[in-house]
Amino acid sequence: METMLDKSNTTPTTGVNTVHLGMVGFGTVGTGVYKVLERHPELVFEKIAVRDTQKARQVEGLNADLITADPFEVVRDASVQVVIEVMGGVDIAKNLITEALQNGKHVITANKELIAKHGAELLALANKKNVRLLFEGAVAGGIPIIMPLKLSLAANQVEVMAGILNGTTNYILTKMSQEGWDFETALKTAQEKGFAEADPTNDVDGFDAAYKIAILSSIAFNQSVNPEDVHCEGIRSITAEDIQTADKLGYVIKLIALAKKSADSNPDIRVHPMLVSKHHPLANVENEYNALWVLGDAVGDVMFYGKGAGELPTASAVCADILAVCRGLLKGNDPIPSMTFEYQGSTPLSSIENTTNRYYIQVNTADTPGVIGNLGQACGKHGVSLDSVMQQGTHADGNACIVLLTHEVTEGEMQAALKDIEAQPTTQSIGAMIRVL
Amino acid sequence: METMLDKSNTTPTTGVNTVHLGMVGFGTVGTGVYKVLERHPELVFEKIAVRDTQKARQVEGLNADLITADPFEVVRDASVQVVIEVMGGVDIAKNLITEALQNGKHVITANKELIAKHGAELLALANKKNVRLLFEGAVAGGIPIIMPLKLSLAANQVEVMAGILNGTTNYILTKMSQEGWDFETALKTAQEKGFAEADPTNDVDGFDAAYKIAILSSIAFNQSVNPEDVHCEGIRSITAEDIQTADKLGYVIKLIALAKKSADSNPDIRVHPMLVSKHHPLANVENEYNALWVLGDAVGDVMFYGKGAGELPTASAVCADILAVCRGLLKGNDPIPSMTFEYQGSTPLSSIENTTNRYYIQVNTADTPGVIGNLGQACGKHGVSLDSVMQQGTHADGNACIVLLTHEVTEGEMQAALKDIEAQPTTQSIGAMIRVL
Repeated sequence: METMLDKSNTTPTTGVNTVHLGMVGFGTVGTGVYKVLERHPELVFEKIAVRDTQKARQVEGLNADLITADPFEVVRDASVQVVIEVMGGVDIAKNLITEALQNGKHVITANKELIAKHGAELLALANKKNVRLLFEGAVAGGIPIIMPLKLSLAANQVEVMAGILNGTTNYILTKMSQEGWDFETALKTAQEKGFAEADPTNDVDGFDAAYKIAILSSIAFNQSVNPEDVHCEGIRSITAEDIQTADKLGYVIKLIALAKKSADSNPDIRVHPMLVSKHHPLANVENEYNALWVLGDAVGDVMFYGKGAGELPTASAVCADILAVCRGLLKGNDPIPSMTFEYQGSTPLSSIENTTNRYYIQVNTADTPGVIGNLGQACGKHGVSLDSVMQQGTHADGNACIVLLTHEVTEGEMQAALKDIEAQPTTQSIGAMIRVL
Repeated sequence: METMLDKSNTTPTTGVNTVHLGMVGFGTVGTGVYKVLERHPELVFEKIAVRDTQKARQVEGLNADLITADPFEVVRDASVQVVIEVMGGVDIAKNLITEALQNGKHVITANKELIAKHGAELLALANKKNVRLLFEGAVAGGIPIIMPLKLSLAANQVEVMAGILNGTTNYILTKMSQEGWDFETALKTAQEKGFAEADPTNDVDGFDAAYKIAILSSIAFNQSVNPEDVHCEGIRSITAEDIQTADKLGYVIKLIALAKKSADSNPDIRVHPMLVSKHHPLANVENEYNALWVLGDAVGDVMFYGKGAGELPTASAVCADILAVCRGLLKGNDPIPSMTFEYQGSTPLSSIENTTNRYYIQVNTADTPGVIGNLGQACGKHGVSLDSVMQQGTHADGNACIVLLTHEVTEGEMQAALKDIEAQPTTQSIGAMIRVL
């Protein structure tokens, strides 16, 4: 499902304070972050470092004075309280984040490779300086995973995690399964559609998923995991025939990032293709979607599902971290600021008559010519547009069972049409009226 | 999947401090909370109010001095910092929570009816007293939903939420669909299995789901929603025939709690059965499982899935709230305590040879008698126990394609068997080796 940002609805500024932000990188994710934060006038960009200062940006009203070509200007700017790192890469990003933390700035990043490789060291520095280093956007785009794992499942020992954490390979495997394509054809299509890069190694050989499961395991098991220790096999050897055979046996094939921990051995963490039973919730995660399935010893099994990449989905995760940190800064003396619920008044609801729906209507009627025409007329009279009309067989008493599927109409229109249908001499009963999601 | 608590693995006490807890109610959820918190010696129960002080409790080492029959003793005890309300009901629970908040105590509750009806008032009081009122356990048991909605999706305008929030009705509808049962038979079975109560009204008529969607909407839309305003239809009128007809058209029927908001009208919030396309992620949520599907304007669509009820799943949610609050109390001067990541060192991983898996092996062999026996012998020699052996047809070159599915064995055993298989004169090639999740 496509995402589109509603700019009309902005959070009112608190008036009590402002948080000053700096950002390094202004590509896809950075642009998304900038757009999402336009709703938050209490958060003010002081400095944004870009590779090409002359490039036109897809955002409105950007103050050119904020732009610099030197990323170190951002992390050294005394006014910046929170640094957002969305430039990618490892070495320079690590130097920048290290300096930002040393300068007492909170840091938000979506850099999975950096966090997988150097997270432990950077987190230790952040804790020493009493600032936060958050990275929800580093794993599975916008899907809330890191915070739920850390906060909501805090009472659990995580026993197993199994994730579909790479959208490119999941798209390729889905197409191989649904269209019968071989790997090369599916990869080429993924590249044409922008789901795979020109050099797909990082995705199809499993390294991207390995970074992500290393990060998730480090959080779940509370011990840092070196991504280079993660056994990693990609999907290049999977054939359309494997997928068909697995299908006959009741399985789909997915690239699974797996992490298991037992009390008496080292954690078992790896990335490789797996047969997944069609009854497992991960089996239905298709195309570019990602999901993480977690088995905790108290909660049982839970799953988090959504888009694993993209400008706005990843920005959603990065901005969640920014808002969490900024809320703490805006309410300095509140012990647990992010967990304060404040409703702004109460709201009346739309009455059921005004709601719009598609409807499934089942009518039991006499099995005579013209009945379908009469039903169509009753609907048309009240503005109920029909998507399809199907006779679903004949009852034992000789009456017909007719199913109508409508387009989107109001409940009021539908109820008026049903009243008319009920009054028709050929109608025996309205068997069912069920709305369609 | 059944949940079972691993007691061996406890969090080390910090030594710096202790948080003092009181609990009202010691039934299913309360017992689960007590068990989960045994891992946290830094959290100490001071007082637990129960209906029947003589009843034997399913927990070890409970100090009888903690037990009282008077719940007001808990909320008035000066030593108690955090009150856990798991007694249920509305009137007395409301009085207790009000007094606890007024006395400056943080409150954690799993009481959906109370929060749906009086959440706004209680939250206002909590904010006034600068304490927290948290209620993750009130919606969908252990599935992380409230915190992710509040924190992880904070950057989004929520456009639509659709939830399967009642396990009883989902179990009934699943059985009607899979077994062809009518409503009454499915309800009776649910009652026998303990999934439905003797008086099932609250579940099957949709009221339970209405409380939950009222709570979720209040958080997502930041305006309190009165549960009595939620239009509510149950599943009593759904027939096995409706489910079959929907199935033919590509739909399943689910009891959906729906919340939609548009900028220019009142929110549309309701509970009723809906046709759900088989391609929608909610369609695969079966039996007693719950799920919430959320469409945000930045993140796109995400879904949270898991068990909606039960002793340990609900305790997982209640304890997540307790730990979040207590972490704040233990680290008083930390601005955002719950978002501090601390890894306790690093960990080596289990080597791939030592991991255990079930394996799917595809072998291309000469199509001669005895081949399957030879494969079986090669496996047996290395301790690889076979679950099944299937000939999946013959190749164009006259060779056979044989698929082996193994029981759980080590990777080392499997690789040794594969080496033997490869060396057999009848073996042409190992076509695939894929592990099974």
